[in-house]
Amino acid sequence: MTAANKPAWIAADWGTSNVRFWAIGTDGSVLGERTSADGMGSLVASEYEGVLNQSCNEWLETATMVVACGMVGSRQGWVEAPYQTTPCAVCPTKMVKAPVERDGLTVHVIPGIRQTDPADVMRGEETQIAGFLAQNDGWDGIICLPGTHTKWVHVSAGEVVSFQTCMTGELFALLAEQSVLRHSVSDDGWNEEAFIDAMSQTLSRPERMAGQLFSLRASQLVHDTDSQTLRARLSGLLIGAELASTKPYWLGQNGALIGAEAVSQPYVAGLAAQGVAVTRADATDMTLAGIKAAHAMLETR
Amino acid sequence: MTAANKPAWIAADWGTSNVRFWAIGTDGSVLGERTSADGMGSLVASEYEGVLNQSCNEWLETATMVVACGMVGSRQGWVEAPYQTTPCAVCPTKMVKAPVERDGLTVHVIPGIRQTDPADVMRGEETQIAGFLAQNDGWDGIICLPGTHTKWVHVSAGEVVSFQTCMTGELFALLAEQSVLRHSVSDDGWNEEAFIDAMSQTLSRPERMAGQLFSLRASQLVHDTDSQTLRARLSGLLIGAELASTKPYWLGQNGALIGAEAVSQPYVAGLAAQGVAVTRADATDMTLAGIKAAHAMLETR
Repeated sequence: MTAANKPAWIAADWGTSNVRFWAIGTDGSVLGERTSADGMGSLVASEYEGVLNQSCNEWLETATMVVACGMVGSRQGWVEAPYQTTPCAVCPTKMVKAPVERDGLTVHVIPGIRQTDPADVMRGEETQIAGFLAQNDGWDGIICLPGTHTKWVHVSAGEVVSFQTCMTGELFALLAEQSVLRHSVSDDGWNEEAFIDAMSQTLSRPERMAGQLFSLRASQLVHDTDSQTLRARLSGLLIGAELASTKPYWLGQNGALIGAEAVSQPYVAGLAAQGVAVTRADATDMTLAGIKAAHAMLETR
Repeated sequence: MTAANKPAWIAADWGTSNVRFWAIGTDGSVLGERTSADGMGSLVASEYEGVLNQSCNEWLETATMVVACGMVGSRQGWVEAPYQTTPCAVCPTKMVKAPVERDGLTVHVIPGIRQTDPADVMRGEETQIAGFLAQNDGWDGIICLPGTHTKWVHVSAGEVVSFQTCMTGELFALLAEQSVLRHSVSDDGWNEEAFIDAMSQTLSRPERMAGQLFSLRASQLVHDTDSQTLRARLSGLLIGAELASTKPYWLGQNGALIGAEAVSQPYVAGLAAQGVAVTRADATDMTLAGIKAAHAMLETR
């Protein structure tokens, strides 16, 4: 790095299992990146500053500010950054400072968002949404963030209006890896036709869902159905149920999807089968863009 | 036991995790009972006779026949007793003999039942149904056998017409003990009003199911809802989805429920809320009655 472009601040995506740091230069460019397994789940509050010092030691020679999002701001994190409540601005206005011992360093934590009725919470996704809005000024519509707990978020006029979480990713993992279905469902592989067929079934007849899960196991025993087809069918049944539940969100809406390729693909295919096209964006890119947008708000205060 | 009433044969309920033996006297009465953890899951085919000899040694001085139901007859069991296919007689006509070394001993294994479309299987429950029919001659209607994998069985004119399995019990255990909901759902306790409310919601609006699971976790974080209420709500959501899926079975039907008290109670309450009254029967009693009915068929051949 040149003398003219030293690390001015550090962006941090501090989740439950991992943390990712970026050194941001005086001109806003990314000068370096670090990841570690020191996630919120393995730390007590007093340990966060040590992880930061260890991972970003030479960056901190010049950087004087950290802006962090994710579970670092939960009650069990470094400092609790109380949820904003919907409807609320996409870009956070109430960041919270974490306690630090190092002179001249300030750590700002981005709050999550909660909804009162129906009860729902997010922490981390709000930053990806802020990043998407920063890159798509004035965007209105639905943002889907697929993952372990997929979020469906209605964004309008720069505000998060409402959102809904479906724990489809976690349910798929539990059923495929730990239930009786593990004997019948492959670890990988795919059958797109079986996926679309199963998804369409639960989307159009969600009341049949409960009876169709064990049928995957029985289908192997009775018809010797292959395990890749059954894996795609399980995914289709669950995503169909999710699309049935979130229909008021996506039906006839402008859609965007923020996520990694593997986890996004079934949602893109499922929505396409319903005639809904989505704009795609990468989750990591949006997180960084969102933290930069939050940093810009701090600078202009 | 008197000289006049020695063990004439042995009834066995041989499941995946456990086996239960009963010594049956010449007059048909139960003379003794044994249980062991030597279930199908921990045995290879050649080990079954040893378990039988060890558990029932003195009974085998006079008993010359064993009649067994359950996973003992699966492909991974003692001997494969191929499934009967629906529609089929409730009381099994095609028992299979297991290979034994002991002179003068015959072991008969009761087959399970399969359905081709939609694919489904049972092994063990068919014997409970046979027991119920043996005690309720000419009974027509729906039999629900709640458990890890709950079975809904349409019985008419002494035949199993069709059936449907819902893995609600397994799903509840996975979600309550291993998902993110474990932080919010108690290990025991109950809230009947919350159960009925949640059950009614998914029964009337099954399409909303996928969005309501994470809401249990969020409800604790946002509203500090107590964990016993959330446990009952989770059970209600899942049983409501099962009742939605099995509505063609129970709606306007004559119903019976075979199961232990704890696992049966939510089903009884859920069906009662829909105006469906059910006859209750104990699972172990029905298993023994079913094995006796199968034994009687062998005797009259």
